[in-house]
Amino acid sequence: MPRKGAFGNEYKVVLVLRGELRLTAGKAAVQAAHAAVMLYEAAARRDRGLLDAWLAGGQKKIALEVATLADLEALDRAAKARHIPTVWVEDAGLTEVAPGTRTCLGLGPARAADVDAVTGDLPRL
Amino acid sequence: MPRKGAFGNEYKVVLVLRGELRLTAGKAAVQAAHAAVMLYEAAARRDRGLLDAWLAGGQKKIALEVATLADLEALDRAAKARHIPTVWVEDAGLTEVAPGTRTCLGLGPARAADVDAVTGDLPRL
Repeated sequence: MPRKGAFGNEYKVVLVLRGELRLTAGKAAVQAAHAAVMLYEAAARRDRGLLDAWLAGGQKKIALEVATLADLEALDRAAKARHIPTVWVEDAGLTEVAPGTRTCLGLGPARAADVDAVTGDLPRL
Repeated sequence: MPRKGAFGNEYKVVLVLRGELRLTAGKAAVQAAHAAVMLYEAAARRDRGLLDAWLAGGQKKIALEVATLADLEALDRAAKARHIPTVWVEDAGLTEVAPGTRTCLGLGPARAADVDAVTGDLPRL
C-alpha cells in the first residue's frame, strides 16, 4: 500500500470504540467495519476525489479507544469544529449491548494532520 | 436495523481473521474494516442490487476466526465453489505483522444461508 508520508497529502480514517462497553474483539471489529462502510458512503456522496485519494493511499485506518460515551461525544464535537466528517455506529443490540447503543465514532477520510489534531492522544484499541 | 429473517432474502458479510497472528483487538478491527470496504467496492462494481439489499438489511456483518492461513485458504475455496465473493486483506506490515501478510478473508455480501453453509461452524472472533 503506497503512502504519502510527510507531504501533507496523506488521508486517514480513524475508528474510535467505547472502552466502557467491553466489547469482544469480534464485536469491536464489526462496529469498526460498519463505521468504515458508512464513512465510505458519505465520502462517495460528498467528495469522490477525497475518497479516491484515501483509497489510493491504501485506505489507511486506525482503531483507537476512549473510555466513555461522553468522551466520544466530545471527540465528535472537536472533529466537526475542524470540518472532519464523522459517523456514529448504533448497534442493533442483538448480542452484547442494548439496542441503539452508540458503539463507535468514525472520522474521515480527512487529512492525517487534521485527524491527528483531534485523536492524536488517544490509545490504540 | 431491519432484518429479513426466515424469508431467504437476508444478506450478510463475514469477516474471518487468522487466530495464529494474535492481532490486538485494534489491529483485527482495522483488518475487518479493510475487508468490509473491499467487499463493498467489489459488490458496487458487480451487483449494485445485491449491495443495496445488504445495506437495506442493516449491512449485517459478523467477525469469525480460523486458526491458520491454510484454514483461511480452504474457506476461500469453499466460498468460491458456492459463488460467494471473497476478498483477501494483506497488511502493509507497519506494526504487528510482516509486509504482505494475509490477515483476513472477507466473504459476501451474499445470502445468509449460502454464507452460513461455509462459515457456520467457525467460532466468533
